[in-house]
Amino acid sequence: MTVVRGRQFFQNPGPTNIPDRILRAMDRPALDFMGAEFRAIAEECYAGLRHVFKTDQAIIAYASNGHGAWEAAIVNVFSPGDRVLVPETGYFSLNWGNLAQELGLEVETLPGDWRAGVDPEAVEARLREDKAHTIKAVMQVHNETATGVTNRIAEIRRAIDAARHPALYMVDVISSLGSIDFRMDEWQVDVVVGGSQKGLMMPPGMAFTGASQKALQAAQAARLPRVYWDWRKLVTGNRQTAFNGTAPVHLFYGLQEAVRMLAEEGLDHVFARHRRLAEATRRAVRVWRGNDGPEIFATDPRTQSDSITTVLLQDGQDAEAVRSVALDRFNVSLGGGLDRLDGHVFRIGHMGDLNEPMILGALAAIEMSLAVAGVPHGKGGVAAAMEYLASERA
Amino acid sequence: MTVVRGRQFFQNPGPTNIPDRILRAMDRPALDFMGAEFRAIAEECYAGLRHVFKTDQAIIAYASNGHGAWEAAIVNVFSPGDRVLVPETGYFSLNWGNLAQELGLEVETLPGDWRAGVDPEAVEARLREDKAHTIKAVMQVHNETATGVTNRIAEIRRAIDAARHPALYMVDVISSLGSIDFRMDEWQVDVVVGGSQKGLMMPPGMAFTGASQKALQAAQAARLPRVYWDWRKLVTGNRQTAFNGTAPVHLFYGLQEAVRMLAEEGLDHVFARHRRLAEATRRAVRVWRGNDGPEIFATDPRTQSDSITTVLLQDGQDAEAVRSVALDRFNVSLGGGLDRLDGHVFRIGHMGDLNEPMILGALAAIEMSLAVAGVPHGKGGVAAAMEYLASERA
Amino acid sequence: MTVVRGRQFFQNPGPTNIPDRILRAMDRPALDFMGAEFRAIAEECYAGLRHVFKTDQAIIAYASNGHGAWEAAIVNVFSPGDRVLVPETGYFSLNWGNLAQELGLEVETLPGDWRAGVDPEAVEARLREDKAHTIKAVMQVHNETATGVTNRIAEIRRAIDAARHPALYMVDVISSLGSIDFRMDEWQVDVVVGGSQKGLMMPPGMAFTGASQKALQAAQAARLPRVYWDWRKLVTGNRQTAFNGTAPVHLFYGLQEAVRMLAEEGLDHVFARHRRLAEATRRAVRVWRGNDGPEIFATDPRTQSDSITTVLLQDGQDAEAVRSVALDRFNVSLGGGLDRLDGHVFRIGHMGDLNEPMILGALAAIEMSLAVAGVPHGKGGVAAAMEYLASERA
Amino acid sequence: MTVVRGRQFFQNPGPTNIPDRILRAMDRPALDFMGAEFRAIAEECYAGLRHVFKTDQAIIAYASNGHGAWEAAIVNVFSPGDRVLVPETGYFSLNWGNLAQELGLEVETLPGDWRAGVDPEAVEARLREDKAHTIKAVMQVHNETATGVTNRIAEIRRAIDAARHPALYMVDVISSLGSIDFRMDEWQVDVVVGGSQKGLMMPPGMAFTGASQKALQAAQAARLPRVYWDWRKLVTGNRQTAFNGTAPVHLFYGLQEAVRMLAEEGLDHVFARHRRLAEATRRAVRVWRGNDGPEIFATDPRTQSDSITTVLLQDGQDAEAVRSVALDRFNVSLGGGLDRLDGHVFRIGHMGDLNEPMILGALAAIEMSLAVAGVPHGKGGVAAAMEYLASERA
Repeated sequence: MTVVRGRQFFQNPGPTNIPDRILRAMDRPALDFMGAEFRAIAEECYAGLRHVFKTDQAIIAYASNGHGAWEAAIVNVFSPGDRVLVPETGYFSLNWGNLAQELGLEVETLPGDWRAGVDPEAVEARLREDKAHTIKAVMQVHNETATGVTNRIAEIRRAIDAARHPALYMVDVISSLGSIDFRMDEWQVDVVVGGSQKGLMMPPGMAFTGASQKALQAAQAARLPRVYWDWRKLVTGNRQTAFNGTAPVHLFYGLQEAVRMLAEEGLDHVFARHRRLAEATRRAVRVWRGNDGPEIFATDPRTQSDSITTVLLQDGQDAEAVRSVALDRFNVSLGGGLDRLDGHVFRIGHMGDLNEPMILGALAAIEMSLAVAGVPHGKGGVAAAMEYLASERA
Repeated sequence: MTVVRGRQFFQNPGPTNIPDRILRAMDRPALDFMGAEFRAIAEECYAGLRHVFKTDQAIIAYASNGHGAWEAAIVNVFSPGDRVLVPETGYFSLNWGNLAQELGLEVETLPGDWRAGVDPEAVEARLREDKAHTIKAVMQVHNETATGVTNRIAEIRRAIDAARHPALYMVDVISSLGSIDFRMDEWQVDVVVGGSQKGLMMPPGMAFTGASQKALQAAQAARLPRVYWDWRKLVTGNRQTAFNGTAPVHLFYGLQEAVRMLAEEGLDHVFARHRRLAEATRRAVRVWRGNDGPEIFATDPRTQSDSITTVLLQDGQDAEAVRSVALDRFNVSLGGGLDRLDGHVFRIGHMGDLNEPMILGALAAIEMSLAVAGVPHGKGGVAAAMEYLASERA
Repeated sequence: MTVVRGRQFFQNPGPTNIPDRILRAMDRPALDFMGAEFRAIAEECYAGLRHVFKTDQAIIAYASNGHGAWEAAIVNVFSPGDRVLVPETGYFSLNWGNLAQELGLEVETLPGDWRAGVDPEAVEARLREDKAHTIKAVMQVHNETATGVTNRIAEIRRAIDAARHPALYMVDVISSLGSIDFRMDEWQVDVVVGGSQKGLMMPPGMAFTGASQKALQAAQAARLPRVYWDWRKLVTGNRQTAFNGTAPVHLFYGLQEAVRMLAEEGLDHVFARHRRLAEATRRAVRVWRGNDGPEIFATDPRTQSDSITTVLLQDGQDAEAVRSVALDRFNVSLGGGLDRLDGHVFRIGHMGDLNEPMILGALAAIEMSLAVAGVPHGKGGVAAAMEYLASERA
Repeated sequence: MTVVRGRQFFQNPGPTNIPDRILRAMDRPALDFMGAEFRAIAEECYAGLRHVFKTDQAIIAYASNGHGAWEAAIVNVFSPGDRVLVPETGYFSLNWGNLAQELGLEVETLPGDWRAGVDPEAVEARLREDKAHTIKAVMQVHNETATGVTNRIAEIRRAIDAARHPALYMVDVISSLGSIDFRMDEWQVDVVVGGSQKGLMMPPGMAFTGASQKALQAAQAARLPRVYWDWRKLVTGNRQTAFNGTAPVHLFYGLQEAVRMLAEEGLDHVFARHRRLAEATRRAVRVWRGNDGPEIFATDPRTQSDSITTVLLQDGQDAEAVRSVALDRFNVSLGGGLDRLDGHVFRIGHMGDLNEPMILGALAAIEMSLAVAGVPHGKGGVAAAMEYLASERA
């Protein structure tokens, strides 16, 4: 057995680095989840979440992961046979669509370029065609965790409006929330799906839906069966007032600390920090691209993600070999390729509680792993990242 | 603001006392939930759960609370319109039944005495009547968390067999698992529902279903829509091999420690300890019964619960006043009455990580709270509990 | 191996119960002990300590235990051959005296009644005799940890003044600080010795001396060799401004939380709570006294300690047998007898982070342990404690 | 207020990075330090320490920092006026000598080159001159924490033997223990001084002396006053059997985990890892040396330390400016220059729980800080470190 020493660099695209403050806040006895002390904690959490979602509408928390909140989003607003439009962006958009289909919806996939992200004009065109308004909702992933592409939600919103289409706008912000700007109210997003384990810097086990007034109304008419996820049981007005069964009090303890930390830093600073560390990562990968080396999967600079960089290896190169070296020799944990990208890419999570030496240590380990694994690449990626970070004011 | 000092005595009937070992095991960074290190942790957890459930069949874990596992149990084995028999035992049996109804089942409640528990003969009689075998399942709570009554599962199993009825036997062990003997395989229970936050001594946020071979087969034919809870996605053979979305790694960290602790003590010792501390509690309440004081809600000594004692106050006495004094003045947290028992009872959880001075400290605070709240009662309850515990060998 | 379950009731007279808040505050990475962040923490700690010592004079912290601070107190103010008066009160007063002797002082013990505490009149009488003022200091234990006797410091101060004697007044407050009122400035105590692990609710490893202006002046002339403990290196004006070597940053983390907790509760409330829980303990022991049972070692109600009750068994009874039962069967840890009291007494610490159910759980375990160990005693000690605590408002 | 996010890179040369395992082991209630459970923990700690010190002789632990153990080493073996020889190597050797002088010894400093370390021949020559054997001991720092120079203890031992001189050999291993090979018994070191907060990866607050049979005998005759540090009270045979006052149980909890971690990795692997990461650091600094940049303070490759690299800036360059940028902008904490080196050097600790991405992240931050602070330097230091680490097998 190899004994690995020192702290693991955890560059997975979720779960991600959990600050000690949050871990310590969760290291605490249980309390009565129906008592006043817990209610005060929960209130602070919901207020903090609204701040992060940039909404004054309903946020509903579940003991579940993001897949649970995906399901919650669907079963609350739809009836069997409802038609939804899913702009294709990669693994997670497809899977959310599949889930909808398994739950009895008619799912129409709008084909798209995985490496560029959703084309707002294509959405507008398709919606314009739907004169009968048979499409009940557009279901969209904000930031594709699999590809590192960030879709342009505000522009797609404008596309829907331009088509004068009444579809609900549903957005999965699982890997953008708390890392990349998202504005539920300003962008009139009706249903939002988020999770605890990425930009919120928490352990997995808690997930959220945001629900606009329009979504809550849709829920009154929706006929898909649901109990655990049922907004009608959980929400009064536009506030969650009940929890179905025992509330996950420890995750609330952590969330209370998480929303405090985000408020202390300020969301604008949080987003700027993510952008800076992401740009450093991209600069490193661009150097590695030399000498027939790996490249950034996302091809459109407008949609390269500030929370995840997916790195595509050239044909015949083994991404898993790079990941193994990084993990076993340098104690750096990277994300692997999902589904059809398996073996072809590795993913660098750079979201949440991260700073310059953390990302540089990780990039250094990756650059060394490329060398050790015999993957051709341009040298000097880390140097390029350093040059950028030294010049860029925090 | 009152500052309360010293450790809270947390006598809620779940969540309950979490041992430091478990909290510390969870106070740890995330890891790759698709990597080898996590798989080894998960394997140990599942093996430990099978030991606690006394089964070699499938145990499926969810990021959810017990209400989620309730729903999982139903959506996996039923089709819309299926008929189930729910022997009434109190708040939780009724609610599980309601949930089934909301999901589209036809639910028949078998009336019963909340204070005595299910009568196996009544179950047998009802099943004998059902010659057409329209009843697909008997849905049963093992230990009613609301009333402190432990149903006689082995005897009900025999009743089903005596009626030669093929119904699935489904049992909720949420407040008995790890505290009171339960034998999934020996008692041929087809679907079991358990949670993390009671006898497993964990935070809430994780729940389980056990599924027999017969249940897994039923799942192949079941037509209720489900994705998050879908055994077909999660189970290979009779082992959980996948997690739907991100696994709640921190709850697995805690669970690993929990199953180790239960194995170290030995289940027989765990159950004997619960019985001993429960009996001490009952002896105290029996003394309090004097002078027109409160009484044990459960009337049949065979079914008085070893994990929870529900204490019924006499008419005109306010259980909430007792709870308030206990909490505000003595830092002892008790459970309140649920639904129709609200205000009439308080509940003493004595499950999980508990020992003699913990229960005696709590009983002492309760006896004092009765006095402070002006509730008539016999004095000397704690003394009776002490006398019993001093005489009873661990 | 017996597996003991549930939380240990830790009724040792130091170290004692450490609140989770303090443990969690210490569960944190190191930081630069010469940097600004640590200096701010240390400043808050010193201010908090001055509040607890009720002084505006110098408090000096050491990485050491109380025995280290004992030594620090002596080596800083004395020269070889200096004469000191040590009113005898028990194990710790004798040992502090021994330490002084080993370091080269001439130590005069003023005989006294271990069960009653120091007689201020005897101190006055002895000092009046010392017309030449050869006695440089009176060295006094405030609260004898071995006997549970609290000496009357204010009265002894008045005795010294009445004798018009210039001796330094040195007081060990190790087992009273933060539990029993002590007023360094008002009582003109020149040198105070305290430790982290009792009323400050901290782990052991940190100790303190308070030093009055008079003591700091004495330090300039003192000729005992010292470096580690040397106030002259550590103090500027009347503030500690340096640490000899690496500061124990984690103990400062804990201390910061400890002084915050004491301020939140308010010292008066802290002392009242100690008095209440101590009185409950005494009432229990007084009942046990019946039937030839054990008694409170401290005989004078004025000096019975609010932080420790030493319980004296009758001849032929084995205190260690009681302690063993309490620990092995009930997971309650009690203090043993020290030196000549070994086997004759056990000690109940009731200091620090304690509340009613904690002390009652412990007393219940002790009363049961007396029964199990076959030690005659009056029954109903816990009942008497409960009756008192139910009647006494917090 | 700047909010700094992400984990601090703590490259101080002690205290240093504390592994989570050790912090969590310390996050635990107190226990009876005179009971069996603590004794077992302490036994394991002492055995582990003997393994790390490579000795079968006495190791004595104190609640103190390294300066306390320095004092303990002296007061236990000397009498007033004894003469000792202190080969000069920097700040810490001088200070240990000063301490001896303040305690009443006659200290002779053997002048030496701070950047090269002790010359064994000079020691031998001086000892040969001392035909009367008036020199009672050679007091030597193994690894100068201030300069990053590791003295050649085995060779100095041979020098003492070659001179046939009976002096005690006393070695401070504070910043080498657990990072750089040290062999108390093989090298016949009589008194060893170590601390918890460096290679043992612990919080500060605990320190150690090793004492050979010869040292223990010297202690019998030594006449310096001592109580807290007194081996005669603490040691039976060659094992510590007592603790003076309350043992610092939490530091023992941590130490238990520390010695387990060192044993798991294996001391040889630990030392090799330190050598590898130190060499990477040196390669970076050598590149920075270009363009009139900073250099490694230690000039002799044989004595460049594997636990600390002291980096000397050129005249007119401000080391503190570099440290400020590193801390404030990149959250990397570096050591500053001590005494006469203040402002001229910064120090990179690379000891304890460290791995490749940790040191590379730190080096990257330092290289960027040089740029930001306007300190001329050769670029590509990190790249050189990466090239080395990619080629060097763990």
